[in-house]
Amino acid sequence: MNKHPEFLLNKIENPKDLKKLDLKELEQLASEIRTLILEKDAAEGGHLGPDLGIVEATIAYHYVFDAPKDKIIWDVSHQTYPHKMLTGRAYAWLDPDKYEDVTPYSNPDESPYDYYAVGHTSTSVALATGMARARDMMGNHENITALIGDGSLTGGLAFEGFNNAADEKHNLIIVVNDNQMSIDDNVGGVVTALKKLRESNGQAEDNPFTAMGLDYKYVGQGNDIKSMIDAFKAVKDIDHPIVLHINTLKGKGYEPAIENEASHHWVLPFDLKTDKPTVPAPKTPNASTVILDFLKKHIENQENILVINAAIPGVFGLGEIKNNYPKNYKDVGIAEQESVAFAAGAVKEGITPILFENSTFLQRAYDQLSHDVAANDLPVVMIVAGGGITAASKTHLGIFDNTMVANWPNWEYLAPTTLNELKSMLEWAVK
Amino acid sequence: MNKHPEFLLNKIENPKDLKKLDLKELEQLASEIRTLILEKDAAEGGHLGPDLGIVEATIAYHYVFDAPKDKIIWDVSHQTYPHKMLTGRAYAWLDPDKYEDVTPYSNPDESPYDYYAVGHTSTSVALATGMARARDMMGNHENITALIGDGSLTGGLAFEGFNNAADEKHNLIIVVNDNQMSIDDNVGGVVTALKKLRESNGQAEDNPFTAMGLDYKYVGQGNDIKSMIDAFKAVKDIDHPIVLHINTLKGKGYEPAIENEASHHWVLPFDLKTDKPTVPAPKTPNASTVILDFLKKHIENQENILVINAAIPGVFGLGEIKNNYPKNYKDVGIAEQESVAFAAGAVKEGITPILFENSTFLQRAYDQLSHDVAANDLPVVMIVAGGGITAASKTHLGIFDNTMVANWPNWEYLAPTTLNELKSMLEWAVK
Repeated sequence: MNKHPEFLLNKIENPKDLKKLDLKELEQLASEIRTLILEKDAAEGGHLGPDLGIVEATIAYHYVFDAPKDKIIWDVSHQTYPHKMLTGRAYAWLDPDKYEDVTPYSNPDESPYDYYAVGHTSTSVALATGMARARDMMGNHENITALIGDGSLTGGLAFEGFNNAADEKHNLIIVVNDNQMSIDDNVGGVVTALKKLRESNGQAEDNPFTAMGLDYKYVGQGNDIKSMIDAFKAVKDIDHPIVLHINTLKGKGYEPAIENEASHHWVLPFDLKTDKPTVPAPKTPNASTVILDFLKKHIENQENILVINAAIPGVFGLGEIKNNYPKNYKDVGIAEQESVAFAAGAVKEGITPILFENSTFLQRAYDQLSHDVAANDLPVVMIVAGGGITAASKTHLGIFDNTMVANWPNWEYLAPTTLNELKSMLEWAVK
Repeated sequence: MNKHPEFLLNKIENPKDLKKLDLKELEQLASEIRTLILEKDAAEGGHLGPDLGIVEATIAYHYVFDAPKDKIIWDVSHQTYPHKMLTGRAYAWLDPDKYEDVTPYSNPDESPYDYYAVGHTSTSVALATGMARARDMMGNHENITALIGDGSLTGGLAFEGFNNAADEKHNLIIVVNDNQMSIDDNVGGVVTALKKLRESNGQAEDNPFTAMGLDYKYVGQGNDIKSMIDAFKAVKDIDHPIVLHINTLKGKGYEPAIENEASHHWVLPFDLKTDKPTVPAPKTPNASTVILDFLKKHIENQENILVINAAIPGVFGLGEIKNNYPKNYKDVGIAEQESVAFAAGAVKEGITPILFENSTFLQRAYDQLSHDVAANDLPVVMIVAGGGITAASKTHLGIFDNTMVANWPNWEYLAPTTLNELKSMLEWAVK
């Protein structure tokens, strides 16, 4: 049953309906969307911070552009809840009985407003650049937009996309959603570059986008609907590629998600009043605690253990290593290729890198696992989560890692079935 | 038998011997190395332009640094002929009977001066960054250098490497060997960024390296030994990461290789007087001509065919498409991930992308082939060369593509055994 029959959102069947609203009504809509994200996430879990942060930009996009003729490619696509609500799918947030009726990532089987199933990062610019080139070949003129950010800018494919976008001759709008975060804290040189741009209101001399020949525009108030409408109007129908760098606040509208952005990137069901999870904490010992104990023992023993991950310390509970043993910890950002090549470099010097990865994201590092580690026969230790035959979506399948690894020489693939087996396998692996 | 017993190079057993030479002798050495590269390549084929361009920088590196304590990671590693000659392996160029005794890529099984088997691109910065971090953990202080360039800067992993290099706290020297070329013409925004830096003698405001917080130094005369010695002396033992951007000339010392850099990146045996190949041209029709005829027929027929490749048009003889049908041609640079995601974007808009790739480089795009194409069930056509059980080196194995593809849904893998089969398969694929 619809929990909020009074919501303005009930009248939005598609983005055309947005265009009839005035600014006050659009702001009302933003407030409703935020309420719905929080209610559904509190009940079901899901991505939280990224969606709370992108509400105003999404409303402004659909107010200004003409989807689905104009096309927007959402990077990562875990930040599409507001987009889904504005493109005919609000029922799956308004009515708890229908919470399961809409999938959590962009999904072309579900809506003509979604163009790709996207669950990995940093693909949007490359996809949009291919679409823009094809549009030009066919003599069409719609606006093509990539919305990247929320950390996915650190993935190498994003850079490859920008490098080629700079070569395109016609309309292509790249929105860099700069919420100053990755899944965990954002890391590396890109953080520095974006910070300089934010602090100079987009005027910094060292601009990596204009350096590549891309046009550039900065919006300081990415959570202000009016600012975003003005910015989108200014770039609509532009005849060349442009980067629209918008400054947004991850978690906006929910104080605990602002105070601790990393733990609110994706949430388990929780109590909206206390922010506490409503599902029982996992029993201990479990695989995570066994691995943590193992790491701490070896680090305290003065061994040269380097714990590496690509922006997902939370998956493995690595926060304790990050905070208590910073010398033994490295998060390379959303950059799976780098995480493996970095480990290959580190092990060559004689230390023991232990690399943590999700099964489904591991495939982005196929070449490094094969070329840099296997062909060089280097003793890199990896701990992989999520391999198996269950999956949250078709973009997050854990069934491929075993067949992938099986093709390479020099890799051993172990699958512990008990905690004792896990302990023994860990000790064997670092020896 | 040693063809050049009079060469100074005969006295260089390892880089220490270099340090006794004066500038004139070092220049003499550069001339000898160039002669040897040309003689061996003329007899045997091999990489030519990249090695001719890096002679002086290599001499200066080994003159200033103390290998193998100081370590240099060569990107791509097809530009290591001079390095090999200066690290005890000159016999494999001096004596035609020993031409086969040394491998063409960096090879730790062959020499303590080589650290990794490297045959794919853009890995050097990530590897070096991992080594630098491990060195610091172990309390060591040697210089760690990555030498990247010759187009490999456009690969996303290079960018991931720079992003993390900016976070390192101690010594790390990244030499960007800017020869203004990829395997083919360099493409994209990075070209623009490097060009601005070259034209301003390193002073351009838009500096993508300093934007990321990296220190930066420019050397305009990268083929001048003295300039390179001064530059390396200035960065030796530096206590933070720095980018040393050097301007070099691909093919230097051999006029035909400068005039046509793309065709002299890698060469078949040739006559040094006429520059003509000394092996017979392939018989026609062959697979390449059949594919070219097929492409031309469909393009002339006004079909929306987009021929895509990642910096290797020469492998497939695509020069004719590039020159005669630029609207139907896209080279994304050394960026395999981008080539596949770009094709996925293009096909979604309704055109027919045909993607050309080497079997061994295809694995870098595993995630895009799986996530962006297979999971989205998009009709991308690929033509893959070099699959099979023969290989030039352990980093260029063509045996993995079949097992890799076999794991994905929605891909069909066809292996034509005759030209007629090839024709039929091509026609089937674009339908």
